[in-house]
Parts: sequence; structure tokens; C-alpha cells
Amino acid sequence: MGLIVQKFGGTSVGTLERIRGVASRAIATQKRGHDVVVIVSAMSGETNRLLKLAHDCVTVPDGREMDALAATGEQVSAALTAMAIHSKGGAARSLLGHQVKIQTDSAYTKARIKSISGSKIFDVLRAGQIAVVAGFQGVDDNGDITTLGRGGSDTTAVAIAAAIGADACEIYTDVDGVYTTDPNICPSARKINRISYEEMLELASLGAKVLQIRSVEVAMKYGVPVHVRSSFSDTPGTWVVGEEKSLEDVVVAGVAYDKSEAKVLLQAVSDKPGVVAKIFGGLAEANISVDMIIQNTSTGDPAKASTDVTFTVPKTDLARVKPLIEDLARQVGAKGIQYDEDIVKVSIVGLGMRSHAGTAARMFDILSRESINIQAISTSEIKISCLIASKYTELAVRALHDGFGLDKATQAANAPDL
Amino acid sequence: MGLIVQKFGGTSVGTLERIRGVASRAIATQKRGHDVVVIVSAMSGETNRLLKLAHDCVTVPDGREMDALAATGEQVSAALTAMAIHSKGGAARSLLGHQVKIQTDSAYTKARIKSISGSKIFDVLRAGQIAVVAGFQGVDDNGDITTLGRGGSDTTAVAIAAAIGADACEIYTDVDGVYTTDPNICPSARKINRISYEEMLELASLGAKVLQIRSVEVAMKYGVPVHVRSSFSDTPGTWVVGEEKSLEDVVVAGVAYDKSEAKVLLQAVSDKPGVVAKIFGGLAEANISVDMIIQNTSTGDPAKASTDVTFTVPKTDLARVKPLIEDLARQVGAKGIQYDEDIVKVSIVGLGMRSHAGTAARMFDILSRESINIQAISTSEIKISCLIASKYTELAVRALHDGFGLDKATQAANAPDL
Repeated sequence: MGLIVQKFGGTSVGTLERIRGVASRAIATQKRGHDVVVIVSAMSGETNRLLKLAHDCVTVPDGREMDALAATGEQVSAALTAMAIHSKGGAARSLLGHQVKIQTDSAYTKARIKSISGSKIFDVLRAGQIAVVAGFQGVDDNGDITTLGRGGSDTTAVAIAAAIGADACEIYTDVDGVYTTDPNICPSARKINRISYEEMLELASLGAKVLQIRSVEVAMKYGVPVHVRSSFSDTPGTWVVGEEKSLEDVVVAGVAYDKSEAKVLLQAVSDKPGVVAKIFGGLAEANISVDMIIQNTSTGDPAKASTDVTFTVPKTDLARVKPLIEDLARQVGAKGIQYDEDIVKVSIVGLGMRSHAGTAARMFDILSRESINIQAISTSEIKISCLIASKYTELAVRALHDGFGLDKATQAANAPDL
Repeated sequence: MGLIVQKFGGTSVGTLERIRGVASRAIATQKRGHDVVVIVSAMSGETNRLLKLAHDCVTVPDGREMDALAATGEQVSAALTAMAIHSKGGAARSLLGHQVKIQTDSAYTKARIKSISGSKIFDVLRAGQIAVVAGFQGVDDNGDITTLGRGGSDTTAVAIAAAIGADACEIYTDVDGVYTTDPNICPSARKINRISYEEMLELASLGAKVLQIRSVEVAMKYGVPVHVRSSFSDTPGTWVVGEEKSLEDVVVAGVAYDKSEAKVLLQAVSDKPGVVAKIFGGLAEANISVDMIIQNTSTGDPAKASTDVTFTVPKTDLARVKPLIEDLARQVGAKGIQYDEDIVKVSIVGLGMRSHAGTAARMFDILSRESINIQAISTSEIKISCLIASKYTELAVRALHDGFGLDKATQAANAPDL
């Protein structure tokens, strides 16, 4: 007997047939003795349809109106899901963001949840009904409708699970869990049974396909056990849980890669206080998100010291950012600028790194054995990233994956099923 | 300088192009110095699309969920209309039923408005913005979304106009006003410039195409001047106003006809107290709405007295109602039953009838000159209806229309334009 939150994404409610599948699953869960709260996204394609309507209407849609418009997608899904549960003899009530009182700030189209009142949900559950909550939406202090941004239904689900003290938050999606790396380029990739919140956050590029990264932050903050699993099977998926439940003997949990960044190299920048701040302050002002930043210690005469500064920016921003970078380079006296879009960032992530020395050295060794040149390195406590030429992506990912033993089933058994 | 409510139906917001037209009109009205509140229906076809989704999902959709689903149609229109106003440089905010606090009872899919708080609307107007309100929807005391039933946006518009004390409620539609009769069958039909609420109510069958009849009741109750006009032109349409503003010299305001009813004749029913009550009580229990009821005084020996009872029921209910009628006929000792679907009800409507004697006689005379046999007659204070064979529909309507001088422009000039 537990309290389970089940979240179904756009694909899982993409047709009436699939909505009926969601209804069956919710009813089955209830029949096993649980209280069930279902969170639904808009039917796949619906949010894009609404966005297109808005953009056909006005070049830059007002955020408040955009949210009032977009929130209808989840409202439709919630009502239809409740009806589908009725059609199978179950009891259900749909609830909207303003009814559950999912209070957010007023940052339209990307609002953040401030508080959730569970009382309406408990009213529904006490009546023996399944509560079906429209994901993605909230309401601000003025009573205006807000949305949480793309993938926000995951955040709704985890935040509601936290607010009502749910025993688990199940995220149903079209894949069956989080993998040790991308199975499309590494055939030996395996489904991860358990992973820590921290690892999941660092594996964003792997995980983003199955779990919105903001929702992981919320889950970590409130200790909500999250179960990412397939809406098309009953196979257990991946549990995302607190660190203490994780395994000690896994050094590396997964290998991620990211082709979305371009490398920028500023050559022979004068190594004086304030210079680097000037560069990255300028980029931040232009709202360019910089990922990696690498600067070596300069050697030689401190008065004439200069150093190379390497950083990465999203490829989609590169055209916009070039004139700005050239201007900044001039200001800081850089001797030259190099751009490189043919790069990939390959990362290994794992809590075990903290206690296992030499993980970085092992990573570099594996890459060098494949004659892959490392252009830049950055590390965090549980993640090591290398920038390499993009043509080596598959080779590097496969070598690191198997080199760290991720192809072998050394993982823990599943979390206890509720 | 006035306060104007403008309501646009599904056809008027059926495409983004038309929504832009709505935006232009609202901005133009505001530029003439008025405060403007726009009420929008769902884009044409949208409500049917949502209903179909619901009925594909479950045979009998739950009313509460149905309303949560259907209300999204107007929510989309309201947001897009606000955006379209922005795109033309205007200022606007959309408001939903729960934001305006359109409080209704909980009779889902056909809720009735209990109260409206104008405060949110005035907030928007005070900020110099156009308030765009989603029609058709309200919220009950539990905070659940309700809808007012088909055509409910007209009612929303008139009720809001009443609540905020608007100077006029403009109903924009795809025709340019209310006509003296159906122009499709009577080429001399003319647009009515001014008509009283009472006449408009009795002309339901003419008016229903342009103005939801419940909204006329609300307009009459609160004295809201309603202006029915075309969304595709600037021509003044028909003002629906209080009686005192109507013209005295118009006896008949319009000629209506209704082919939707079937005639039922119960022959030689015993003329005793309680018999008629039994018949119509039985029909009411089965939820059959009976329109005309005609019973003649019986003659002869009161102990053996019998009379014919004629009434009409919707043709769509006839198959369902026949077994019931046969059962009731047996109970009241009727000697026979006749059904006739080939009938039409032709009505003349006008406040002037009250003070002008002989209107009924003149109607019967006009019909008899065309050799049209009258099968049944019913009268109210401002309406006379005759049941005739349906093949005479066009003939009767044209004869009555011109016979009462409706082809001649004797009407008052337009109401003062705001």
C-alpha cells in the first residue's frame, strides 16, 4: 500500500488508444492497493501545433498569453485520461494547475514552482478516485496561468510527489530506462538499474532524452525516488535515487557525449587580473551560455605573460557570437582566434571517482591507446570531460564504455518494487 | 466614450486571418475612445473536434471532464486574439472563466451563471488594455470548470455586459442582423433595425441563427442593449432593446417558421379532469418537450364528453415517443392516434398586436386567401402560430410577410451608434 505518482509523456498519451493504455496502467496500480496520481503531458504534436498557431499570429508571442494557450494541451490530455479511466470502470478526476494550486513565479514559459497544495489531490484520493493532474502548468500569484517550459511535466510529477510525500514517482516514457551510454553508437550499452541523482544530473546529455534535468534537481532536493520506465512494457526501468542507496563498487556509471558545442580558442591573451572576467562577462551579457572553460597557467615573465583561453559555446549561437568574440579578443589583446565546430565532448560520470584515484589517468590512457588526441579537459568531482575531434565520437564512447567495464553486468539488482 | 462588449462567434475567429480581423475591430473601437471587452468562442470546428475526442474515448463522457475538455477551445481563441491585438500594436490580456470569476452552478455542460465579478476586467481596462474573455465557460463553487452549453458565448457576453454596466453588447456573427423572415425563402425579407427583447424571444427560430436565446433573456432582465451585426462589414445590424424604445406603429415585427415539430392527434379523449394532465405528465417524465397543445371545448352530455387533443413534439423524438403515446392513449381511452410529420408552424410576432385588435383574423384571412388550411392555432400575447401542411411553408411565409407590410421600410432609423 503506497502512494504512487505516475507521469506519462506526450508519446504515451499521443493517441486515444495510448491514453486507454495509461488508464489501464493507473487502474491496475490502484487495484494493487495504491493511491495513484497520474500526471499527463500534452498529446504528442499538440504543443508544437499550439506554438505554431501563436507564432503565425505574432512574431514574438507575449509570455502570459503563450502560457494560457499552451496549457490547454495538458488540460485536454487530463480530461481525456480521466474519461478513459471512467470508460474502463475506474473512478478519476482531472485537476488543472490552478486547481491543485501549483503556485509558480511569473516567469512565463519557464516558470519555477514555489509551492504545491496537496489538499485537492488528497480530496480526490480519499474519494477512492485516481487524480489526473495536467502537467507542465501552474498559476502565479495573480491567478495567471504559467508553464514550466519544455519537459516541465517531469518537474510537475516530481514536485507533486515531493509535496504529497509519494513513495515513488514513476516517469513513463518511450524508452525503458537510462543507459550506460547511447545504445545507438555502442551496442554493449546496458540499462542502468540504479543511479544517483548526482550522476543523473551529470549524465544530462544521456538522461535528457528520458528525464527532464530540472526534475532531477527537485527529486534530489526532496529525496523523491524516481523510476524511469517504459510505458509499453512492465519491465522495471532505472531508479534514480539518493546517493546512500547507490553502489560503491561502480566507479563510472555512464559515458555521455555532446556534439552541440563549438570550440573557441583565444590565443596569447595577456594574463592579467580582470581579463578573463572581461571575456566571459561580455558573453554572459549577450546571454551566451558557455560550457567548458580552460585556461592554462602562463609561464615566463609575469609582466609579459600571456596564455591561451579555450571555451565552448553552443553551435547554434556561434554565428551570433563571432562578432562579439572578435570585439572582446581585440579588447583583451588576443593574438588570434580559432573556431572549431568539428568537436565532441566525451564525458565519464560516476560517484565512485571520488574514492577511486586514477580514473582520469585511466580515461586518458584509453583514449590515447586509440590514438585520439585530447584537445581540452575539464573535471568536476564526479565527471571528467574531454574535447576531441568529432570523427572519433563512436570510437571514444565504445572504448571508454567497455574500458570502464560498463559492458559487464556488475550492477545491483533492481530497487524493491512497490 | 463608452464601455463596449464585443462578442465574436466561432466563424468570426475560425482562422488566424479572421482573428486578426477581430483584433483590428477591437483596436479601432478602442481608438474611438471606448473601453473594450472582447468575448470569443472557440475557433469553428474546434468544439466538435473536442466532443469527438471525448466520445471516442468513452460512450457517455462525464460532465465535469467534458467541460474541462471543451473549455480549452475558448481558451485557445482568447490567447490567440490577445496575441493578434499585440501583433497590431495594441494592448490586451486574455481572461478565463475562473479568472473573471464567472460563477455558475455545477450543471456541467449546461451551467447557468450565478454571478460575475467585474474586478479583473476593470483591472485590465484601467491599464488601458483590451480585455479578451474566453466565452462559454465558468467555474463552480468547487473551482471546477463548467460550460454554459452550445451558444453559451452569447450568454457570457450579455452577462458580462450586465455585470460591468456596459453601454452596449455587440454580437458579431456571419449575418448582418435579424431579418423580418428567412431571406432564403422570402426575397422581400428586410433587416430589422430595432426589435424588442420580447419579440426577439418569440422569434427564436429566426433569431437562434444569430443570437442564443438564453442570452436574450439575460439582456432583457438586465436591460443590456444588444447589437447583432456582421463581423465582415461595418454596416449597422439589428439592435435588440427594451420595449419602451420600440416603435408603436409596427404591428408585426417578423414571420417565423419551424419545421422541426411533428403533430400528434389523440382522438376522442374523454374530457374529464386529470386526463390531459396524465398525458402531458407522462411525456414530461420521459423528457419530451411538447411545444403546441390544443384542446377544444367538448360539447354534448358532460358524462360522455370527449374531445380531440392535438400537440406537437420534436420530430427527432417521435420514434422514441410513439410507444409511450400509445400507452398513454390507451390509459385515457383515446379512440385513435394520428401522427403527421409533414407540418410546419408559421408564426407572426409583434408587440403591436397587444394594442391592435384583429391581427389574428388578418393572419387567418391571408392564409385562407392562399387556400391554406389551418390545422391548429395557438396564441400568446405577442405571437400567433398556425400549424399548416409543410408544402405551404414558402407560400405562407411570403404571404404573411408582405400581407403585414414587412416588405416596406416603415421601421425606425438605427439606434444611435455608440
